[in-house]
Amino acid sequence: MTDTHIALAHGNGGRLMRELIDEVFARCLDSPSLDTRVDAAPVPGPADDCELCVSTDGFTVQPLEYPGGDIGSLAVHGTVNDLAVSGATPTVLTVNAFVEEGLEIALLERLVHSMGQAARSAGVAIVAGDTKVLRRGEGGGVYFATTGLGVRARASDLGPHRIEAGDVLLISGPVGDHGAAVMLAREQFGLRGDVRSDAASVLGLTQALLDLDGLRFMRDPTRGGLATVVHEITATSRHGARLRETDIPVREPVSSVCEMLGYDPYYLACEGRVLAVLSPADADVALERWHAIPGGEQARKIGVTTTESPRVILETAIGGERYLEELEDDPLPRIC
Amino acid sequence: MTDTHIALAHGNGGRLMRELIDEVFARCLDSPSLDTRVDAAPVPGPADDCELCVSTDGFTVQPLEYPGGDIGSLAVHGTVNDLAVSGATPTVLTVNAFVEEGLEIALLERLVHSMGQAARSAGVAIVAGDTKVLRRGEGGGVYFATTGLGVRARASDLGPHRIEAGDVLLISGPVGDHGAAVMLAREQFGLRGDVRSDAASVLGLTQALLDLDGLRFMRDPTRGGLATVVHEITATSRHGARLRETDIPVREPVSSVCEMLGYDPYYLACEGRVLAVLSPADADVALERWHAIPGGEQARKIGVTTTESPRVILETAIGGERYLEELEDDPLPRIC
Repeated sequence: MTDTHIALAHGNGGRLMRELIDEVFARCLDSPSLDTRVDAAPVPGPADDCELCVSTDGFTVQPLEYPGGDIGSLAVHGTVNDLAVSGATPTVLTVNAFVEEGLEIALLERLVHSMGQAARSAGVAIVAGDTKVLRRGEGGGVYFATTGLGVRARASDLGPHRIEAGDVLLISGPVGDHGAAVMLAREQFGLRGDVRSDAASVLGLTQALLDLDGLRFMRDPTRGGLATVVHEITATSRHGARLRETDIPVREPVSSVCEMLGYDPYYLACEGRVLAVLSPADADVALERWHAIPGGEQARKIGVTTTESPRVILETAIGGERYLEELEDDPLPRIC
Repeated sequence: MTDTHIALAHGNGGRLMRELIDEVFARCLDSPSLDTRVDAAPVPGPADDCELCVSTDGFTVQPLEYPGGDIGSLAVHGTVNDLAVSGATPTVLTVNAFVEEGLEIALLERLVHSMGQAARSAGVAIVAGDTKVLRRGEGGGVYFATTGLGVRARASDLGPHRIEAGDVLLISGPVGDHGAAVMLAREQFGLRGDVRSDAASVLGLTQALLDLDGLRFMRDPTRGGLATVVHEITATSRHGARLRETDIPVREPVSSVCEMLGYDPYYLACEGRVLAVLSPADADVALERWHAIPGGEQARKIGVTTTESPRVILETAIGGERYLEELEDDPLPRIC
């Protein structure tokens, strides 16, 4: 492209828009299934014993690039992971970009390139997209929305309705890294630290457990973090939950950042972790499998569901107990 | 909801976000297939003789409400119509909302309600969604992105590659109404006029032609308008195109607005029109069918493809000729 920055005319439907689509999106995504000339792209249907499912997510992180990732790869991982934790294998993805006038095109290219790489590494084809240009000051640089299709076995039945009292909660790795990394990358806090986002596809982790009869439920603890997912589990299953503080893995630099800024790491977003609920009988098998998989080396059993009232109790390191409440009016930094 | 305006905390994953989703999106969309608790929603697979296809679109119109429509219904019609002109019947839709801090919740409810109505009237189920809250000043009120799935006959083969010289171009109704209505609704122009957006589902119009062997190609002339679609036809098919100014329907108030503001109505967006290309043998049948359908009463033959060089020639009312060029650096008002 001859231009170095996005102009409003890149959204007008004419030559500049065509160049933006061809030379940034099509080229950097490098997706053989993407035909930018058609209104609707064909997608594979499911096999007989599978059903199709769909998931969608929007992405507004600031800054756009941070240690361990950027909004481009995040937009792929977020939707891939929503499909993965629902028991599906993602097949195709669509991308919407809302690009702000004035954005540097070199930056956009890096983000779209990162998006294409993340898609290829997750084995998902980007088949359709759309771009709109927002007026200067009205867009935060770029927002993405992605929608993914996946296939899952018809026999699959995961959900909080399957959870029984006495089930075991597993987390695939340390929590809060993504949220802490993004906060550190924002200059406003004036902090530095060795924290990288955990953003990654969790497809390997979820697929490793799908054949276990005792697998009840999986979710990626993104917005609202681990505490919010466990809160949702209790609210929907009507069981209580007990977490053991000493068993929940939190990296030291993440704890430090949280202490300094007054955040609780259990409420910070992860973008490459899975929380799974399993029967006691299958929890050990699951843990063993995760330990053998890249990204699951630090998996831990972190708690159990109980017959108590549907609240989340944290058993603290010093032997006390406190409730982990649902987030109220807490404007966390924009991290996903 | 107890709040009257959107706060950042409506995006934090906690109680306020759940309220926003349950009490605005789920309630106003009123879509029985929408389960706000799942990561991925099941969608119907195609029948054996059909293939699945997907389309996605982003929506950033200002103002959010205008005569004849709003960004909510537009976000449904836009994606429904992209599927429709590709020969598909839309089945399910996903919605992403980027909502700006400070937006009045009553306004958001109107927009989401309008979105739900448009979806029901097009026979498409909204099955999944996501909401992000943007900081005040960073969002233009609300942006939507919708992704639609549809099914079409495997035998269907529409596209510019099917177009032959001597084919006939049909438009289903007057052009430029949507673009003109949105411009008038923006206070900056200080104009008033009796122009309503043509935004509507074109599904009835497209399905009426699908069994015609001579149907080559359909498209809804949105961003960039009629001229941009015909330009694309010539660029892809490598045929010339001739349009007759006297045959292209433009409503009088739309012409007036364009004259005053210096816009060409052929470049203004329509959101409820179809441009179809047919063999001469089938063009008359198509026109007759459209005339019998609501929204097609004013359909017209507006031109032909030729063996000339691949450019768009307008035969003017006074007997002259001029080229309709591709849009260049023209920042049209944000109308879709």
